[in-house]
Amino acid sequence: MKRIAVLTTGGDAPGMNPAIRSVVRYGINQKLEVMGVFRGWWGLINEELKVLDHRSVSGIINQGGTILKTARCVEFRTEEGQDRAYGTIKKYNIDGLVVIGGNGSFSAAHEFYKKYKVPVVGIPASIDNDVNGIDYTIGTDTAINTALDAIDKIRDTATSMERIFVVEVMGRESGFIALTVALAGGCEDVIIPERKLDLDVICHGIVHGNLVGKMSWIIVVAEGAGKAEDIAKKITEITSLETRTVVLGHVQRGGRPTAVSRDLALNLGKNAVDCLIAGKTDIAVGLAGGNIVEVDFEVSIKKKELKIDNLFNLVKILT
Amino acid sequence: MKRIAVLTTGGDAPGMNPAIRSVVRYGINQKLEVMGVFRGWWGLINEELKVLDHRSVSGIINQGGTILKTARCVEFRTEEGQDRAYGTIKKYNIDGLVVIGGNGSFSAAHEFYKKYKVPVVGIPASIDNDVNGIDYTIGTDTAINTALDAIDKIRDTATSMERIFVVEVMGRESGFIALTVALAGGCEDVIIPERKLDLDVICHGIVHGNLVGKMSWIIVVAEGAGKAEDIAKKITEITSLETRTVVLGHVQRGGRPTAVSRDLALNLGKNAVDCLIAGKTDIAVGLAGGNIVEVDFEVSIKKKELKIDNLFNLVKILT
Amino acid sequence: MKRIAVLTTGGDAPGMNPAIRSVVRYGINQKLEVMGVFRGWWGLINEELKVLDHRSVSGIINQGGTILKTARCVEFRTEEGQDRAYGTIKKYNIDGLVVIGGNGSFSAAHEFYKKYKVPVVGIPASIDNDVNGIDYTIGTDTAINTALDAIDKIRDTATSMERIFVVEVMGRESGFIALTVALAGGCEDVIIPERKLDLDVICHGIVHGNLVGKMSWIIVVAEGAGKAEDIAKKITEITSLETRTVVLGHVQRGGRPTAVSRDLALNLGKNAVDCLIAGKTDIAVGLAGGNIVEVDFEVSIKKKELKIDNLFNLVKILT
Amino acid sequence: MKRIAVLTTGGDAPGMNPAIRSVVRYGINQKLEVMGVFRGWWGLINEELKVLDHRSVSGIINQGGTILKTARCVEFRTEEGQDRAYGTIKKYNIDGLVVIGGNGSFSAAHEFYKKYKVPVVGIPASIDNDVNGIDYTIGTDTAINTALDAIDKIRDTATSMERIFVVEVMGRESGFIALTVALAGGCEDVIIPERKLDLDVICHGIVHGNLVGKMSWIIVVAEGAGKAEDIAKKITEITSLETRTVVLGHVQRGGRPTAVSRDLALNLGKNAVDCLIAGKTDIAVGLAGGNIVEVDFEVSIKKKELKIDNLFNLVKILT
Repeated sequence: MKRIAVLTTGGDAPGMNPAIRSVVRYGINQKLEVMGVFRGWWGLINEELKVLDHRSVSGIINQGGTILKTARCVEFRTEEGQDRAYGTIKKYNIDGLVVIGGNGSFSAAHEFYKKYKVPVVGIPASIDNDVNGIDYTIGTDTAINTALDAIDKIRDTATSMERIFVVEVMGRESGFIALTVALAGGCEDVIIPERKLDLDVICHGIVHGNLVGKMSWIIVVAEGAGKAEDIAKKITEITSLETRTVVLGHVQRGGRPTAVSRDLALNLGKNAVDCLIAGKTDIAVGLAGGNIVEVDFEVSIKKKELKIDNLFNLVKILT
Repeated sequence: MKRIAVLTTGGDAPGMNPAIRSVVRYGINQKLEVMGVFRGWWGLINEELKVLDHRSVSGIINQGGTILKTARCVEFRTEEGQDRAYGTIKKYNIDGLVVIGGNGSFSAAHEFYKKYKVPVVGIPASIDNDVNGIDYTIGTDTAINTALDAIDKIRDTATSMERIFVVEVMGRESGFIALTVALAGGCEDVIIPERKLDLDVICHGIVHGNLVGKMSWIIVVAEGAGKAEDIAKKITEITSLETRTVVLGHVQRGGRPTAVSRDLALNLGKNAVDCLIAGKTDIAVGLAGGNIVEVDFEVSIKKKELKIDNLFNLVKILT
Repeated sequence: MKRIAVLTTGGDAPGMNPAIRSVVRYGINQKLEVMGVFRGWWGLINEELKVLDHRSVSGIINQGGTILKTARCVEFRTEEGQDRAYGTIKKYNIDGLVVIGGNGSFSAAHEFYKKYKVPVVGIPASIDNDVNGIDYTIGTDTAINTALDAIDKIRDTATSMERIFVVEVMGRESGFIALTVALAGGCEDVIIPERKLDLDVICHGIVHGNLVGKMSWIIVVAEGAGKAEDIAKKITEITSLETRTVVLGHVQRGGRPTAVSRDLALNLGKNAVDCLIAGKTDIAVGLAGGNIVEVDFEVSIKKKELKIDNLFNLVKILT
Repeated sequence: MKRIAVLTTGGDAPGMNPAIRSVVRYGINQKLEVMGVFRGWWGLINEELKVLDHRSVSGIINQGGTILKTARCVEFRTEEGQDRAYGTIKKYNIDGLVVIGGNGSFSAAHEFYKKYKVPVVGIPASIDNDVNGIDYTIGTDTAINTALDAIDKIRDTATSMERIFVVEVMGRESGFIALTVALAGGCEDVIIPERKLDLDVICHGIVHGNLVGKMSWIIVVAEGAGKAEDIAKKITEITSLETRTVVLGHVQRGGRPTAVSRDLALNLGKNAVDCLIAGKTDIAVGLAGGNIVEVDFEVSIKKKELKIDNLFNLVKILT
C-alpha cells in the first residue's frame, strides 16, 4: 500500500475535519501518500482530487464542516458513474479508500467494494448517529450539545412567559438524540418515532400541570416523529393554550466540534489507516462499549436498534 | 419616595434579570423599599407582588429571562384593569414604578401615567431594539450574538455542501438587526423591510456567482421582510438551485446576557431609580451616543428610524 | 427504606446539580423522602439538612456547582466527628446515603460504612476523573471542553504571534485529561506524570521545527507533572525562545455541564437510588464500557491505571 | 492612490481578521490593489508582503488572531530598520498604509509618517482598549466577554465551596476593563490602578460579610494594579481565610470575535480606506459616542483618561 485517498460524503458533521487531519497525518507517518478527493463520490468521478501534505490539514482541527466538501451524487448510483470513479482510482494508483460519512455513504462504499474490490474503510461521521454496530458517530456529541444549548435558551422564555414550546430536533429514524437532549434539557416531554404518539396523554399532563402551578413546558420532538408545527397546533386545539415552535434544523449540523467529537475523529482516522495497511476492507471502524471496533459495512448499514425505554422513562420521571 | 415597584413586561429579553438586580439593590442602597410585581401589568391588576430584599436577586445576573416573569395582558387595556392596577399601587403605597420592557410596554406605561399620575420610568429591554431615541435596548447585543453564532454554524454546512441558505432573524419593523448580523456573519445578502425586495437581483448574483465558482450563499432575512420559506421557494424557482431555510426564532430570545447587555442593564437600573428619586416621570432611560439619556415616553414609542444605507451597502461590498 | 439523604463533597464538578436533581426526583418517584445535606460531611455533623421536594431542584439542571454546597471537612476524619454524623443519621431516620464526589469522598464513605453500617452509595463526580473502575466521572467532559475552548483561543495568539505556550491543565495524578485535551487541541506536545519528562527532546523538536518554519507551539502540561512556569523557564533557557504560560486552574471546574455530564449525572442519580432500594451498599455506580456498573468503594478508591501509550503516541504523530 | 498595504502589529486581538477582510475587499471595490504585509513592521523591513485578492480573506471573519501575523519588532525602532521599511514601500509603489494595532503601533506609525510622509491610517485593535480619543478598540468586547465567561464559571465554585477568589484580568494602565467585568460578573470587589488599594477595607468587608452569612467573594484585579497571588496572600494573612487565584492571561486574547468586535472592525476597515483615498493621514479611525471619528495619531497615543468613578461605585453598591 503506497497511496490512499480520503473523501467525505453525505451530510457534513462536526468532526469530519479532524478525521481528515488524522487520516492525512497518520497516513504520512506510515509512509503513505494521501490524496484528498473533493465533494465525495463526485470528485472521484470527475477527477477532483489532490495530494494532501502535512500542512494542508493545519488549523482545521477545530473547524466544523469539511475542507474536502461533500455532496450528494446521483451519478454514483449509475454503472457509468461507478466505472468512472473506479477509473480515477486506477489512474491515480490509489490502493485504498477512506470514506467518511453516514450509513448512506457506507452503503455506497459497500456496493463499490463488492464490484471493484478497491479496499475501503469507513469512518462513521453523521449527526444522525445512524450507523449500526457502533455507539456514536463523529458529530453526534457536538450536535447534541448545540441542541441542548438552544433548549437552555428556550427554557428562559418558556419559564419567563410561562409558555409551551415544541422543539424539533434531528432524528429521522431514531429518537435517541431527542431523548438524550430532552433528558439533559430537563424537558417535560419527548416525542419519538419508536413510540406511538398519544397527544391526549401529553395534553392531559399539561392541563393537570397548569392546575398545580406548572406553567411552562418544553416538548422535544424528533423530526422523524412529526412536525413541530402540526403538534403545536393540535396541542392548542386540545388545551386552548398558546403553543410556540422552534425547528433547530441546520444549526445542529455545524460548529466547533466538541472534545468527544474531535478525539473520536482523530482516533478513528488512525484506525482506518491501520485497517487499510493490514489489508482489511469493506468495514467501518467505530467506538463500541469504550473500545474501537471494526464492523462489516453490511452490518453497519442495517437499521440501528437502540434500547430507549429506560431513557424514555427517565425523561418522564425526572420532569 | 419610600417605596417603588418594578415589573417586566412584553417579550422577555436577556438582561432583564440584571436590570431587576440593579433596581432592587440600588433602590435599597438609596433607602427605598422595592417591590417586585409578577407577570407585568397582570401582577399589578391581581396583586401579585412582594418586597424584594438584597438576597432575592442573588445569582440572577447571568441568567436569561426574568425572575419576575412577564406576560401579555389584555385586561390592562381596559379601564377596569387599569383601575385595578392603580388600586394596587395605592393599596401598597407605591410611590414610583420602574417598567422594564419594549415600546409596547412604554406605550402602556405612558397611558397609565397620563391617567393616574403615578411616577413611572422605563428601562428599554427587548430583543427587537425597537425603542426610539436610544441606541440599543437591553438584550439586543445578546440576541445578535446568538444569531451570529447560529450563522457561523450554518456557514460550515453552506460551505461544505455548497448550498444556499435563507436564514430568518428577528426584526419585525426594522432591518437593523438583520443587517448587523449579516455584516458580522459575512453573509452574501440581506433582505430587510426598509428596502423593496428584488429577488431577481439576488438570484442574478447567485447565478453569476456560481459561474465564477462561488457556490455557497447565506441570505439573512428580517422576519418583517418575508418568510424564509417563501423566499427560498422563489429562489429555487428562479435559479433551479436547492435552497435551505433556517428560522432562528425563539432561540434568539434567551441565554446568558453578554457583557454589553448586563452592563447596560445594571447602569440603567440605577438611573431609573435616580430618575424616580429626582421626581422625573413619563420617561425612559437609555444609552444614546455613549451617554445615558432620558427620553420622553412619547418620543420613545415613535417609530425608530435608523440610517441603514451605509450598513446595507457595506454588507454588499464586503461579500 | 423510607428516607434517604444526599450530599456533595470534595471539589465541586459540573453535573453535581443534575445528579442531585435525579436523586431527589427519582427518589420521590420511588416513594422515598429525600433529604439534602449541606456542605458535605460537615452538614451531617452539624445537622444542616432539610427535606427536598420536587420543586427544590427545579432550574438547576444546567447550572455548574452544587446547590447543596460542598466543603472539605477535617472534623469528619475524627472519631468524634464521625459519631456526630452518625448521630444525625439516626436522629433523622435516614435509611441510606448518596454521596456525590470523587475518590477522596468515597474513601471517607467507605470508612463510614464499615464503622456504622449505614447503607451508602457513591456517585462519581469530580473533574479529575480519578475514580477507579469506571470510565468517566461526572464533570470530566465539561472540564475537558472548557480546557479545549481555552486552548483554541490560545492557539489564535500562538499562531498569530508565533509563540511557544505552556498550558497547565488539571490532572494531579493522571495525564489522561492532559492527553485528551492535547489531542483534541492539536497541541504540539504534552507532559504527563506517567512519563519521565525529557525537556531536551521537546526543545530539540522546537528548534528543529523553527528551522523548517513551524513557529508556534502549545505544550500541555498536567498539573501533576510540573508547573507551567518552571517548564517555560527551562524551555527558554535551552532554546533562547520566548515562552508564555497559561494556568487554566479553577475555570475548568465550573460552567454549564455538557450533555454528557448531565446525562451521566441523571442516569447515575437514578441508579444510586435503585441500589439503595435493592439493599446494595459500600459501592459506587458509574459508567464503564458504555454500561452502568457497580464498583465496590474499595476498588473505586484504588489508583486508576489508564493505558495512555496509544493516546500519547497519537498526540505526537498528529502534530 | 493605486496600491495600499495593510499590516497588523502589537498583540493580536479578536477582530483583526475582519478588519483585514474589510480593508482588502473594500479597497478592491474602490479599485485599489491591496498588499498584505506579514508580521507587522518586520514584514515591511524584510519585504514579506503579497497582493491579497478577494478570496484570500474568505472564511476569516469569525477567526481570532490575524492571518497576517503580528510581531514585536525592535529593528523598526532603529533608523536603519525604518529606512529599509520605507525602501520596501517605495519598491512596491505603496501609496498608503493601514496599520491595525494598539497605541504602541500608532506611536511607531506616527514617527514613520513624520519621517517619510507615507500616508498612514490606523485602525485601533487591541484587547487593552488603550487608544485615546475613541471609545473601544476592536477586540475589547470579545476579551471582556471571555473574561466574563470565566468569572461566571469561577462563581460556580466560589458559591459551592464558599471561597474567596482573586481573579486577574487584563488592564495594565487602566481599570476600565476590570470594572466592566466586575460589574457584569456581579463581583464583590475590584482593584484597579486608578485607585489606591486599601486591602484593610476589602478584608473588613469580607470578615463582616462572613458574619452575616456572605461566604463567597470574587475580587477582580486589573493586572496593572497588582498580582493576584500577592493580593490573595495578603487577604489570607489579614482574614485567615483560604483564598484562591486565577490569572486569565492569554485566554482573553483569542477566540471568535463577538458581533460588536466584528462590526466595528468591518466598519473601520472601510473608513480607513476612505481616509487614505481622501488624502487623510497620520490619523486613526475609531468609534466615539456612537459615531465613527478620526483622531490624530498624536492624540490617540496619549494616556487615555476614563471616568471610572461611577462604574467603581456601582460595582460596590450592587454587590
